[in-house]
Amino acid sequence: MVDTAHRTTTKNSGERAATVPAKPANDEVAAPVPAPPAAEAPDSPKVDVAALGRQLLGTWADIRIAARERAAHPDLQRIEGQPMAEHRERVLKQLKILVDQGAVHRAFPKELGGLDDHGGNIAAFEELVIADPSLQIKSGVQWGLFGAAVLHLGTEYHHRTWLPGIMSLEVPGAFAMTETGHGSDVAAIGTTATYDEATQEFVIDTPFRGAWKDYLGNAALHGIAAVVFAQLITKGVNHGVHAFYVPLRDGDGAFLPGIGGEDDGLKGGLNGIDNGRLHFTNVRVPRENLLNRYGDVAPDGTYSSPIPSPGRRFFTMLGTLVQGRVSLDGAATAAAAVALTIAITYGNQRRQFNAASDTDEEVLLDYQRHQRRLLPKLATTYAQTFAHDEFLLKFDAVFSGRADTDDDRQDLETIAAALKPLSTWHALETLQEAREATGGAGFLAENRIVGLRQDLDIYATFEGDNNVLLQLVAKRLLTDYSKQFAKADAGAMARYVVAQTADRAYHGTGLRRLAQTIADFGSTARSVSELRDTNTQRELLTDRVETMVADIAGRLRDARKLPKADAAAAFNRNQNELIEAARAHAELLQWEAFTRGLEQTSDPGTRQVLTWLRDLFGLGLVEKHLAWYLIHGRLSPQRAQAVTAYIDRLLERLRPHAQDLVDAFGYTPEHLRAKIASGAEQERQDEARAYYAAKRAAGTLPVPEKSKK
Amino acid sequence: MVDTAHRTTTKNSGERAATVPAKPANDEVAAPVPAPPAAEAPDSPKVDVAALGRQLLGTWADIRIAARERAAHPDLQRIEGQPMAEHRERVLKQLKILVDQGAVHRAFPKELGGLDDHGGNIAAFEELVIADPSLQIKSGVQWGLFGAAVLHLGTEYHHRTWLPGIMSLEVPGAFAMTETGHGSDVAAIGTTATYDEATQEFVIDTPFRGAWKDYLGNAALHGIAAVVFAQLITKGVNHGVHAFYVPLRDGDGAFLPGIGGEDDGLKGGLNGIDNGRLHFTNVRVPRENLLNRYGDVAPDGTYSSPIPSPGRRFFTMLGTLVQGRVSLDGAATAAAAVALTIAITYGNQRRQFNAASDTDEEVLLDYQRHQRRLLPKLATTYAQTFAHDEFLLKFDAVFSGRADTDDDRQDLETIAAALKPLSTWHALETLQEAREATGGAGFLAENRIVGLRQDLDIYATFEGDNNVLLQLVAKRLLTDYSKQFAKADAGAMARYVVAQTADRAYHGTGLRRLAQTIADFGSTARSVSELRDTNTQRELLTDRVETMVADIAGRLRDARKLPKADAAAAFNRNQNELIEAARAHAELLQWEAFTRGLEQTSDPGTRQVLTWLRDLFGLGLVEKHLAWYLIHGRLSPQRAQAVTAYIDRLLERLRPHAQDLVDAFGYTPEHLRAKIASGAEQERQDEARAYYAAKRAAGTLPVPEKSKK
Repeated sequence: MVDTAHRTTTKNSGERAATVPAKPANDEVAAPVPAPPAAEAPDSPKVDVAALGRQLLGTWADIRIAARERAAHPDLQRIEGQPMAEHRERVLKQLKILVDQGAVHRAFPKELGGLDDHGGNIAAFEELVIADPSLQIKSGVQWGLFGAAVLHLGTEYHHRTWLPGIMSLEVPGAFAMTETGHGSDVAAIGTTATYDEATQEFVIDTPFRGAWKDYLGNAALHGIAAVVFAQLITKGVNHGVHAFYVPLRDGDGAFLPGIGGEDDGLKGGLNGIDNGRLHFTNVRVPRENLLNRYGDVAPDGTYSSPIPSPGRRFFTMLGTLVQGRVSLDGAATAAAAVALTIAITYGNQRRQFNAASDTDEEVLLDYQRHQRRLLPKLATTYAQTFAHDEFLLKFDAVFSGRADTDDDRQDLETIAAALKPLSTWHALETLQEAREATGGAGFLAENRIVGLRQDLDIYATFEGDNNVLLQLVAKRLLTDYSKQFAKADAGAMARYVVAQTADRAYHGTGLRRLAQTIADFGSTARSVSELRDTNTQRELLTDRVETMVADIAGRLRDARKLPKADAAAAFNRNQNELIEAARAHAELLQWEAFTRGLEQTSDPGTRQVLTWLRDLFGLGLVEKHLAWYLIHGRLSPQRAQAVTAYIDRLLERLRPHAQDLVDAFGYTPEHLRAKIASGAEQERQDEARAYYAAKRAAGTLPVPEKSKK
Repeated sequence: MVDTAHRTTTKNSGERAATVPAKPANDEVAAPVPAPPAAEAPDSPKVDVAALGRQLLGTWADIRIAARERAAHPDLQRIEGQPMAEHRERVLKQLKILVDQGAVHRAFPKELGGLDDHGGNIAAFEELVIADPSLQIKSGVQWGLFGAAVLHLGTEYHHRTWLPGIMSLEVPGAFAMTETGHGSDVAAIGTTATYDEATQEFVIDTPFRGAWKDYLGNAALHGIAAVVFAQLITKGVNHGVHAFYVPLRDGDGAFLPGIGGEDDGLKGGLNGIDNGRLHFTNVRVPRENLLNRYGDVAPDGTYSSPIPSPGRRFFTMLGTLVQGRVSLDGAATAAAAVALTIAITYGNQRRQFNAASDTDEEVLLDYQRHQRRLLPKLATTYAQTFAHDEFLLKFDAVFSGRADTDDDRQDLETIAAALKPLSTWHALETLQEAREATGGAGFLAENRIVGLRQDLDIYATFEGDNNVLLQLVAKRLLTDYSKQFAKADAGAMARYVVAQTADRAYHGTGLRRLAQTIADFGSTARSVSELRDTNTQRELLTDRVETMVADIAGRLRDARKLPKADAAAAFNRNQNELIEAARAHAELLQWEAFTRGLEQTSDPGTRQVLTWLRDLFGLGLVEKHLAWYLIHGRLSPQRAQAVTAYIDRLLERLRPHAQDLVDAFGYTPEHLRAKIASGAEQERQDEARAYYAAKRAAGTLPVPEKSKK
């Protein structure tokens, strides 16, 4: 019969408080609690976690720290399992808390109480995801979309008239762009705004069911106004999509005449937001409700715009709303970091199977497969963290007006369209891997991962469907390519150098001019050690983007001369590869940012470990696309095998530093809110090991049948 | 001003009923509604959907049809968004409905009112997933785990005493195997059952927190008994894990003395099941409560077993519970089929962007990328469907006793460990792709996909963690390999032929004897057309498994002679590749089953289309592992490129048949329950197109600004 003393104390108190340190039943015979695996060999580098943490916080570190302190407060946090109706009301109240705390006005004009600080605003906003993604996104709807549309598409009258109510949340509003029938193709929305010269009003109308506005936050319940996107029609001409400020509900929350709607109901996540549908039947708004920065209608119905091209005007207007994509990139990266912090902390404490010893079970993260599942995702999360800070700097430069040319804006939009898909997909994959790597525990809401994954699911398709965004990037790459070689002969096109992009991309870090070394790369990379070389990795990654784009451009060169349908068919036959080329471009941007981040790291130990992590990221990309490198003769079969072998070595080297690397993200227990990352698992393992050690020492452990024979 | 007559009728009635056929506002000018893309060219094959549907239903077609009729009834279906507490009670009531309908006793003995029909039982059980995965899994807990443990691990006394109450649901019960501290490594669970000769009782005890039973369905609320797995200790010897029947709660639902527990609370899905934790403090049960088929204790405490080896005994006991893995393979495949039916139906109706025409937007499924996202998953789902039916036949042969040798059982377990990981992961990937491919609509609970994904998430780690299962498969492959060459010299091992597996695997379909042709394969596959050849695909897939296993075995050959810790380290350095080899083996099993299914297809049109689909599956696997084929010289770079080019061609060929191929799964609107797959999207598209066509015809469509210039 076993000694029950200790057991009784633990089981009768339910789950032991996580803060109680592990205390073996019998100190004398307790198994030695193993130190967490770490870089203990004298020649092994050490990570300066505090300094690295500060570096990861990036340009707006202090704003992020303050935002995290805010997010650590239970009043702003999600209550897992809260019913939808209550969750929606809670998040609305949380928005009011944010207003009271002055946390959400940073991007608005100084004259209205803001700070004209666009980068800092996004940095703070992103951190809300760790409190509750619904809070992040509902804030985004209110101030980042509804408010930002008034700010960026409107002019002084609109700012003065509506921004104060929007900023104070006196006027919760919807951003009524997407329709049931048109999401990605905004230019084709069906809602019309027809100018009536007689009354000097616009008539907002929904001509068919597919033109209902749909999936709009604040539409189902809380919105009392909306920025409605509609085809502006005056004098029988459709001037394309413009934005109109339209009141929705009266003081009692009832729809105003001509307006109707539906609740989108329960969703896969983000249920703290009241998404819904809206439709308009000849709803009249004053002429002045047109947000007229990029297009105006005079009282007599004459249309005017500072941008003559309707196409460029449309993209300029949409471009002012790029901040949604910026912030999703940051928030998705934060969610991935939280997931990895939970899974790696647990993987460093949890034990299962005793392959190497008769008594000690293995720590999960000591298994090669477990390392393979989590550490490459950690490397990607680091790459994204560095890339995001650069992205945000670029955003801030454009929106502050410091660097705000057409080219700057187009570059910003291309970067957004490149990074947002990769980071939002990465977040979902990482959350899923973290869920599976933590087993049944990971499936419990109390461990956070499943809730985050449910909420972030939609990040892959809202603010631009990821595949559509990557296609935009690809088209930009093709355009740059054709500009480059517009007058060149076919021979000059044989090697593609994206000089134009390199000149323009943020911090000079787009595609790089490397043609001179690429041709003979296959023969110069002669050993595994070269794979570690920064330039080797850069060349491999850059070459792939360039070659893919050049190949596709070559195949499409004659398509322009074809009839429209045939040209579209030719394009379509290359669509998948185009999107893969865009992905390769985005991966390169991330790798470049990681490499620059590395160059900023001064502590030698940290730098060594980060170099391994960057190599893992870079060579992970090469391994993922290994077939391409082999087919195109960039790597020999022997060298290709070395990639995988070297990745295995990097995993072994990085494994002792995994905890440091997630700790550097800087999330506290209040941010993680996952029981399995609270130390509870370590406590359970220590208790179990102490129990067996005590019984072994006392000779009271029953003998296994096997050993009796 | 637009004509509002039609619009008003649609918007004022909320969402139009899906059954109302689309009716353009003005018949004369309505745009011609395009027929759904189909095989209309005279030489294009036609799919016999009804016959194919019957084939997909497999061996137990009639039982599946009956089960689907049952699952079509709202009383058995999930109510999306129902709060956890209500959902749990609803599912319990649904279990009672199943009992009343005589739907769940098929596997039990005839003398107790069952049918001794193991295969049919699983077939019916799997179909419950389309009503509510919680219903499937809670049924599985009650009859497939708790009941099956009594049936398969118990003997006549246990059957007579407990099965009637289990079958009738008078006694809901838990299957108390997993502990907080041990999931995958069942052999290491901490709960003890110590025999007390004085009272002829077992004392069930939980020695530490990690040994609490955890994640058990029926434990939080409804279970009034449990089969508890514990280390059987008698006369100071631990005979390993055995199962004990243990009453849990009294008539009022209160825990019996010595028993305690906790509710696991909200989970990422499956919230219709009351998962919870249990712990035992010196709980005494009569000696007879040991389920003693494979191990017994005499009144005097003497242990006996028909299986002398403790290891083999343990695996034999666990093996009787393989049906959980069987049924997850089938249910996951069904969920993937539902997801694809929804996404492909929507993709065939939804339009976005008009690249090819000035007036008509493209149907989503006409985009190459959209085909790339969905059709390979359709091919995999077909492969799984065929593989699952063979798997279930094998299961039925073993459990009916028709083919029930040790080898049969081991083969069955290996197949289960191979197929369950692939199909459960595939379901998650497919549900996610379907979610993204249906955009914002896919995120709404009303369209089913997100709820299914949340519920199926845990399928990847319960009933055996997928990675752990694949490692089991890999170990079996290594064992077969080493048996094969135990006495062979190194030269003979240079080419690995898994003859033993080929002899033993179900229906003779495991790895095949192909060594003679593999060596020179690289030079014989000379053209794209050869990639279509069944034997070429078989050789490519088989060769990869064989070579991977041989390579790893070669690296591990000397490891056995090393000290335990060093041997474990050597194994661990190959763990990732081992698991990938197991995955390759499982993929081959699926491919072989698909190929055999094809051979059963008599209708020429169906057979042609299925051949393309099988080729897409086979070549998709080759493409996924293309780097391996290149590195190992099995495909030249030119031929490797042909793989991708041919896949692109297959996608074009299959695209017109996509709807037929999902329709053949046979799910009705009552099973799909997704508004976007109800025809509502087609109706919206038709209405919008008719609106524009009418205005164009009447000359009232506003002129685009662009065309004015």
